[in-house]
Amino acid sequence: MKLTIDRAALLRSLSHVQSAVERRNTIPILANVLLRAEDGALAMTTTDMDLEINESVAATVQAPGATTAPAHTLHDIIRKMPDGSAIELAVDGSGNTMTVKAGRSTFKLSCLPVGDFPELGGHDMPVNFAMPAAELRALIDRTKFAMSTEETRYYLNGIYIHAGANGNLKVLRAVATDGHRLARFEMPLPDGADAMPGVIIPRKAVGELRKLLDEAADTIEIGLSQSKVRFAFDHIVMTSKLVDGTFPNYEQVIPTGNTKVVEVNPKLFSGAIDRVSTISDGKSRAVKIALNGKTMTLSANSPDSGSATEDLEVNGNDNMEIGFNARYLMDITSQISGDGCRMMLADAASPTIIQDTSDPSALYVLMPLRV
Amino acid sequence: MKLTIDRAALLRSLSHVQSAVERRNTIPILANVLLRAEDGALAMTTTDMDLEINESVAATVQAPGATTAPAHTLHDIIRKMPDGSAIELAVDGSGNTMTVKAGRSTFKLSCLPVGDFPELGGHDMPVNFAMPAAELRALIDRTKFAMSTEETRYYLNGIYIHAGANGNLKVLRAVATDGHRLARFEMPLPDGADAMPGVIIPRKAVGELRKLLDEAADTIEIGLSQSKVRFAFDHIVMTSKLVDGTFPNYEQVIPTGNTKVVEVNPKLFSGAIDRVSTISDGKSRAVKIALNGKTMTLSANSPDSGSATEDLEVNGNDNMEIGFNARYLMDITSQISGDGCRMMLADAASPTIIQDTSDPSALYVLMPLRV
Repeated sequence: MKLTIDRAALLRSLSHVQSAVERRNTIPILANVLLRAEDGALAMTTTDMDLEINESVAATVQAPGATTAPAHTLHDIIRKMPDGSAIELAVDGSGNTMTVKAGRSTFKLSCLPVGDFPELGGHDMPVNFAMPAAELRALIDRTKFAMSTEETRYYLNGIYIHAGANGNLKVLRAVATDGHRLARFEMPLPDGADAMPGVIIPRKAVGELRKLLDEAADTIEIGLSQSKVRFAFDHIVMTSKLVDGTFPNYEQVIPTGNTKVVEVNPKLFSGAIDRVSTISDGKSRAVKIALNGKTMTLSANSPDSGSATEDLEVNGNDNMEIGFNARYLMDITSQISGDGCRMMLADAASPTIIQDTSDPSALYVLMPLRV
Repeated sequence: MKLTIDRAALLRSLSHVQSAVERRNTIPILANVLLRAEDGALAMTTTDMDLEINESVAATVQAPGATTAPAHTLHDIIRKMPDGSAIELAVDGSGNTMTVKAGRSTFKLSCLPVGDFPELGGHDMPVNFAMPAAELRALIDRTKFAMSTEETRYYLNGIYIHAGANGNLKVLRAVATDGHRLARFEMPLPDGADAMPGVIIPRKAVGELRKLLDEAADTIEIGLSQSKVRFAFDHIVMTSKLVDGTFPNYEQVIPTGNTKVVEVNPKLFSGAIDRVSTISDGKSRAVKIALNGKTMTLSANSPDSGSATEDLEVNGNDNMEIGFNARYLMDITSQISGDGCRMMLADAASPTIIQDTSDPSALYVLMPLRV
């Protein structure tokens, strides 16, 4: 293998793929990036056995071939090279060493055999559809904060997506919950997704995908099987195993009889929750919300530090009190980009529904705290 | 106590003083900021018993008085208030509670008695002199990286400053060392500093002072006694206890017979060290420097990851090899702002002197590593 490649292009792609490589690995080959040079391109692949990221970048290939080299070390070297450098990568006859050259620098990196690299496969995806990048970003942003991190509830450690119906409209639904809050995002079902199975995309794949989508072009091609999901865009292909578990029947935790409705400006609401919760104690970060017609009063108390109250003008005419975890409430209000945040409440012990008044695509359910 | 104050002005000063307050305190009063309202100003003081920061800011005082309130909580509250708010601070009759009001927010914070607050004093400073802020910034920047963090060598946990002579010129010298490297900064002795004792300014005071100096005006007033140092500028007074110990005779570790001289561009040198050391193993981060007339070759080896070499053009005509800790070398080269970095070497086992070719005020000594 021998090739020359522009430093900026190589760095950009290496930054993407090295992100899947764990900092500590008990299996040495998982610390390496698989490099494959052919047909004027360098393809890079990394994996942690559950997630695989592959990206291709244009290169001047003098001799096709493949090897694997330490991903983080290679990334560090390329990052430290002066901007505008031309990087030469070459594997010697033995295949044990890859030489990295640029300017007056020469690095020799230990390689491991290509045959040892565990490729995830995922070439057989029976369900295929496409989605605008902006929709997929919204799907992730509106739901991922609600994913559970409890390892014992592994079936909640991801985003559940499935095909469903909203009246006569076929929809794609994304749902995440940790038992304290639930986030549901809904969009028209993409062409070709009718036969999709309900799948749980694991937390790490969600995080890596969202980072890659920051720079993503218009359309994301999605492939699905019973055990894997694949996202393809630009020159990137990310494949992940799915969570092997059953997502709970989330519909039954979305209340239908919440008749008390209050609307508030989400930015003013977020600011007030943030300020008042400065006083809240430790983990629960409880804030109390008292509704009194057109006024909402937020308050918090701590035996150690004191108390806080703040008033907000709201659109409503109910009287009640309820408590929430301030952090959970702000996670939701920060996802509301419009001018109105609508809360639908029942009583102080029942889950509350929160929505953007101008965007029905997302729905949030939040369990109250006793205050 | 009752006063009204502009949020931005209060936030700026609180940010300064709260920095001295440790996050965890076994003595409750040390978590508090002393607030004293009088004569159109609010004075704030914090301390950790070794370091005290005091700052005054203009306020509309309706009722003079004083109290102490939780520093980090108060800072968080003011930080979260909308920009442009007018903040009202008022202590109730009992003195147990301070009310913080702005817009539609009201906070009640628990107070502790003013009498419990341990003021550091330091009003009796026999030696007083002044220094331009830029000189004091340079003094700290050129030396602080070399301070020791080993608690057993407490007398090295700071910057030693004293009056000395360079030929006929009276100078102020600042020195820091951790036994592996030494940094010495020298400037003409300020008027009034002739009688100054040699003092060790502790690490935390150095760090806090340097942060405050970022925004400091032209001149810093310095007061010194046998046990304390005081820095006054703008509306800030920072007082610190000195390290109660004897700084070693550092002159004897500065070699005088280093006859091999090489000059290199510090930016190219830093870049090359950084790149080559990517390959270095673990803690020692050793790089080898081989001098061969007009060429310097940097190299590093690791049994795990491979090897690296890079050539640089230098001004010199000696041949030798020597090893250094890459991190320590870069700490020094990053302080050289001119175009030339001069190294004066003896042999592979002896300390090397490094200087900025265009700025003799700073001198660095670095111990070699066996490579």
